[in-house]
This record gives sequence, structure tokens and C-alpha cells, in this order.
Amino acid sequence: MSLDGYVAGPNQSVKDPLGVGGEALHEWVIELAAWKEQHGQKGGVVNASSAIMEEMFENVGAVIMGRNMFGGGPGPWKSDWKGWWGENPPYHMPVFVLTHHARDLLAMQGGTTFHFVTDGIESALNQAKRAAAAKDVLIMGGANAIQQFLAAGLVDQVNISMVPLMLGGGERLLDNFGDPPPRFEQTRIVEGPGVVHLRYRVAR
Amino acid sequence: MSLDGYVAGPNQSVKDPLGVGGEALHEWVIELAAWKEQHGQKGGVVNASSAIMEEMFENVGAVIMGRNMFGGGPGPWKSDWKGWWGENPPYHMPVFVLTHHARDLLAMQGGTTFHFVTDGIESALNQAKRAAAAKDVLIMGGANAIQQFLAAGLVDQVNISMVPLMLGGGERLLDNFGDPPPRFEQTRIVEGPGVVHLRYRVAR
Repeated sequence: MSLDGYVAGPNQSVKDPLGVGGEALHEWVIELAAWKEQHGQKGGVVNASSAIMEEMFENVGAVIMGRNMFGGGPGPWKSDWKGWWGENPPYHMPVFVLTHHARDLLAMQGGTTFHFVTDGIESALNQAKRAAAAKDVLIMGGANAIQQFLAAGLVDQVNISMVPLMLGGGERLLDNFGDPPPRFEQTRIVEGPGVVHLRYRVAR
Repeated sequence: MSLDGYVAGPNQSVKDPLGVGGEALHEWVIELAAWKEQHGQKGGVVNASSAIMEEMFENVGAVIMGRNMFGGGPGPWKSDWKGWWGENPPYHMPVFVLTHHARDLLAMQGGTTFHFVTDGIESALNQAKRAAAAKDVLIMGGANAIQQFLAAGLVDQVNISMVPLMLGGGERLLDNFGDPPPRFEQTRIVEGPGVVHLRYRVAR
């Protein structure tokens, strides 16, 4: 998230999925050795953010994401769209994609399976929980998906990596979260170079 | 600042100057022993936020604030309005108030003097710099005053104390900051109970 609250910049498009200036939100992770290794690149740095990246999927057994984060543009699916991540996506677990358009399960290399859920967030969460068994479910984003889960009171913990960037517009993370708003309790702060990692427990 | 970016809640009024829910933004400071002592109260806690409060005025020789932060409602001055802080305000130094309405200097107990500046932010800054001599000038707020100084490129350092609160509306801090936006470099993060203190250097 930018310091002014955006997880994507203005004028998002298929060519520019993070909007104008949005790429800079992810600089802290892309420069890490752990990220480069995961993406078949060499080099990179090790710093306080490395542990944050490594723990992101630590006890995670299933992922949920919105249609926009999976990509492929709006409307019915083009059958050749298999996400942004190529034939071997970095999830290696079941991923549940929220969508209004039904589609058959997509089994990728490396154990990632994309399941397309058309009957809402609670159904997606139930399916993800069953798939995750004793492990956690990670709601990756985007903002709209996270807001729906927050507003429905279905989130236990929130992790935000905030960078000192002003995007001035785009997709705000903390908006449309319901009334009364969810109550966050600050549980951990980690300072990395050019980023601060914020962790909150959501009070019930 | 709230996690969703507001320094005051919605529906600000003379009775409710911080807007609905806005008081909770300052809970972290009001519970400190240092704050209670400054305001003639006993008790309070000492924690990682204590040093943040103490350094706030450490090398400060003059303060700038907007009309709304000084208070007294909009329009011409009522002569009996002397700010929110009583006869002995906690500044003990020259304070420059940005306003459209001229008013004579107001000398308070304890060395605080309120100067009313009607010819804009650069004039206020020049006067404050002269008054501060070798010390720093602190731009206290509110959001509108800070935004004007940011947009004009007149800020060296930004300190934000962010609390895990969603206000859902009100006065946003990081808005109207000019185009291109100022570039912040994260220089220090301090975790306090229920608050994270963020410090940024503004790049030129």
C-alpha cells in the first residue's frame, strides 16, 4: 500500500495492471534474493523484508483472489488466459478466483490449481478452508476482494506492506469496509528498507 | 493519522473539532505520563511513544498552524478566542497562525505568542524561521496547512503517528500535495503500543 492508501495507481489497464506508478509498490519485494530465486533470477538482497516475504505463504494451504488480480480482462473468459504467472505459478496450492463467469478448473504445473467461484465470497472461503485443511487461507487481493471479506467480518489478520509513495489516485485498500468499520489491533511492526510491514489482528 | 489516511473524522464542528471518532487518533499520546504531566495531571504510562512525544519539540524554535487548528470558527476573529489551550498554552515559543483575517499579536502566559499571518505560507515560514533562529520550524497541522507546504516544496521532514483505526471519512492528510507528488524517503520507524511512528525525509 502507498502511504496515501492505494494498492494500485490510477488508470489501471491490461497493459498497466498496477496503474500509473503502481509498480513501485512492489520494489521492496522484487529486489529480494528470495523473490529473484523464486522467479528464476540470480542476485538480489537479503534484509529485514526477506523474512516477511518468506512467512507470507508459511502456513498457507489455499489462496483467494479477485478476478482483477487473476487478470484476463473483464467479461467472459478467454480460454487461453491462465493468469499472469505463466505455466508454473508461484502458488503450488489451490487458488480460488472470485468471478461472475463460470470456468472449469485449471490445473497448472507445480501443483497450482485455479478454481473459479461464481457464488460469492462465503462459498469461496468455505471451499478454500476445506482445501487448506489445518492451514490458513490467504486472501491475496485485490482491494475489492479484501474489502468484501473485511465488511463480512471474515478476516482474522491483516498484513500491509506500506511504502513511502504517494500515488494520488487509483485503488484504495481501506475503503468500503462496512459500518461500523472493522477494529484492528496492531500486533507487529517490521521496518525494512523503504517499507514498513504492518500486522493487525481483526477484533471480533 | 488513521490507517485509512485521516487526521480528523467526518462532521468536524466547534463542539467536535476532531470529527466523529477523531479523538481516538490521540489516545496513544494522552495516556503518556509526559503528556499528563504537561497538562497538570498525574499518572500515565511510559513506553516507546514517550521518546517520540518528547522529541516532538526538541529542537523546535517556532510553530506554524492553520486557522482551523487554532480554532475559533470561520470568519473574522472573536476577540475572546485565544486557542484551545487556555491562558498558558503548551508551546512556550512563537506560533504563527495562517488566516485570512488580520489580528494583533496575542501574548500568552509561559512565553507562547500567537502571530496571525494573512499573506500566505511563504511569509509565515520566513517569519517562523527568523523567530526560530538556528532551531527548526514545526508545521503542526492541520491537513490543509501541511498540504500547502508540501505542494510548495517547503518541507524537509515528515513525522506521522499512525493508529490502526478506520475513520471512513473526514480530513485526509496526504491529498492535494501537488503534481508530481513529493518524494518521501523512509528514515525511521518506531513501534509504540497501538501506534507506529513514521519518519520521512522529503527528497528535493
